[in-house]
Amino acid sequence: MTPAASHDEPTTLSYEQAGVAYDLIDPLKVAAQRAAAATGAHLGSHGFSEVAASRGESAYVVDVGPFYLASIVECLGSKALVADEMHRLTGKSYYADIAQDTIAMAINDLITVGATPLVVQAYWAAGGSEWFADAGRAQALVAGWKRACDTCKVAWGGGETPALAGIVADGRIDLAAACTGIVNPKSRLSLGDALGPGDAIVLLASSGIHANGLSLARKLVERLPQGYLTPIAPGLSYGEALLAPTVLYSPVTEALHAAGITPRYCANITGHGWRKLLRHPAAHTYRITRVPEVTPVLKFLQQHARQDDREAYGTFNMGAGFALFVNARDAERTVEVARAQGIAALVAGHVEAGLKRLLIEPLGIEFGDDALQLR
Amino acid sequence: MTPAASHDEPTTLSYEQAGVAYDLIDPLKVAAQRAAAATGAHLGSHGFSEVAASRGESAYVVDVGPFYLASIVECLGSKALVADEMHRLTGKSYYADIAQDTIAMAINDLITVGATPLVVQAYWAAGGSEWFADAGRAQALVAGWKRACDTCKVAWGGGETPALAGIVADGRIDLAAACTGIVNPKSRLSLGDALGPGDAIVLLASSGIHANGLSLARKLVERLPQGYLTPIAPGLSYGEALLAPTVLYSPVTEALHAAGITPRYCANITGHGWRKLLRHPAAHTYRITRVPEVTPVLKFLQQHARQDDREAYGTFNMGAGFALFVNARDAERTVEVARAQGIAALVAGHVEAGLKRLLIEPLGIEFGDDALQLR
Repeated sequence: MTPAASHDEPTTLSYEQAGVAYDLIDPLKVAAQRAAAATGAHLGSHGFSEVAASRGESAYVVDVGPFYLASIVECLGSKALVADEMHRLTGKSYYADIAQDTIAMAINDLITVGATPLVVQAYWAAGGSEWFADAGRAQALVAGWKRACDTCKVAWGGGETPALAGIVADGRIDLAAACTGIVNPKSRLSLGDALGPGDAIVLLASSGIHANGLSLARKLVERLPQGYLTPIAPGLSYGEALLAPTVLYSPVTEALHAAGITPRYCANITGHGWRKLLRHPAAHTYRITRVPEVTPVLKFLQQHARQDDREAYGTFNMGAGFALFVNARDAERTVEVARAQGIAALVAGHVEAGLKRLLIEPLGIEFGDDALQLR
Repeated sequence: MTPAASHDEPTTLSYEQAGVAYDLIDPLKVAAQRAAAATGAHLGSHGFSEVAASRGESAYVVDVGPFYLASIVECLGSKALVADEMHRLTGKSYYADIAQDTIAMAINDLITVGATPLVVQAYWAAGGSEWFADAGRAQALVAGWKRACDTCKVAWGGGETPALAGIVADGRIDLAAACTGIVNPKSRLSLGDALGPGDAIVLLASSGIHANGLSLARKLVERLPQGYLTPIAPGLSYGEALLAPTVLYSPVTEALHAAGITPRYCANITGHGWRKLLRHPAAHTYRITRVPEVTPVLKFLQQHARQDDREAYGTFNMGAGFALFVNARDAERTVEVARAQGIAALVAGHVEAGLKRLLIEPLGIEFGDDALQLR
């Protein structure tokens, strides 16, 4: 199937073309980060202190004495729009999977700092009370949310289910999750202080696109004559494949702790794809010598969006949903622990002294220090 | 000014008429609460336990050993629509105040359980990247968010600023806040175990409508010939008055702790108005003998929505934004502590043995056990 070839769309489809203008959002982010940093000192009035190195990381960490407290809020993004369109086309509800995606966005970020997720709060803002009238869809959302909490052994504390006519679009729902956890014992903190040359990079398999890159994936549908129903493998449509739920990685990080392995750093590979491997602020070279298999939907996306490897690996997870940076002697055992949790993994490379850059050798790709600006 | 009299709108405006259909939302809420409750046991696998009595309260509480952990996510609701319309009419940005409202929704709920708020996470989901192009508005949101964090001595940990075209309505923003805190020492827990006959009810003043009842307040605009610009007092328009930011009550609860006063129970008076005084599940009679002054905007709303006192007090905060249930001997000192924080307060009544009901004697209103169904 190469439906794009029959269309008059010869150009590469980039993330900016898909409608997300980072240059408009980023100045606000910078102002917000600056203002937020100035509030950290308030913790002193309560006898506590922030862990300053967590600013710019995936979760915010506070030293509350006997352990660290970590917290986060994360948004699903636009994946629900794919679920809505697939429901229209097939009659199936995908909201149980969408619920897992939403929780994964929060949990997979929270665990990067070494935290055990304890409580998840649901934020389900609908475009109107009518959203909740579809009982099947609403029950799927509830069931999937609970299932994901069960997988992660986290308590669902409660949440908000507002009807926001005029703010959330008619018939849509804005899904997000807040998560609180603790780093306990404190030695589990994995903000990268100990990260250094010789450490191994272990990549955990993704299930597909997860919940990042969906704006582009939705844009691509316009190029496909059969749209979301375009088969990408026997019996698997593009839409179904996109909706494979995001892998929840906290069972792996908890099992690693039980096995006595403390990652030195972690990166949740979401927006900006593999460029997230450059997340830590220190200057190291990350050399990738083996890449995981690319899930069919991402292969299909790369092909039809006409992205070269550099653009694809800089946008999508390309088969690797989470990166663990571990002491080299723990690398193989880390892979085994992940596999025992049912998640494929491989020792993909290592950290070297050198300029800050990511080398993906099997593909001849290099990303420099300027490839990821998150702070 | 009685503009409604010149209109052909003789009927009372209730909350359901204003577009929020609770009967559609509630079945989902019940299913979600049941599923959520079943996840509490997961905390045992981490060596912790939930405080079951916090289910159904305003914040979820976990016993993590040396102290309790409390967390919550809360939505602003539709108040931003008033800010947008007032910006169109006056050219002023109200987003600094809107930021305070959003944080107040989370903080004022979190403190009801006796928690000290420590970290706030921002959830700012815009209808598109363009929202952030209005630098003045975006900077006001940042400045107001920081100001509210400063008032509450809470650390702004970070957050999400997604651009959600197709999910959030064009030109709008969906604002929410997640908050994490601790109950420390554990004796500060105020879930109402000790609440009983003889306890005093202290009401803290509101600044206006706060962020509950806005759907109705917006609906009412259709009945006002000058709309949001209708004067409700010399130099004060209806729109300006609606946008008075919600009072942040955590400085009072922290000052009470410093003064050695531990409330036995607290109720954040938001949706369902004074019916929230019936929040605690135990059977007590709550007798109100003095009511606070009603802020002009709420008086105006009641008059023009043609609500009787029962409907108004069952919908709006009517001058009382937060209720503290304290040992009677601490009542006057509680009022003094609140006033020292710049917040008006009064000893409004007391708890009695008897059927579960709320008696607002000065107005001849009674709400029974069936008036508030939150669990």
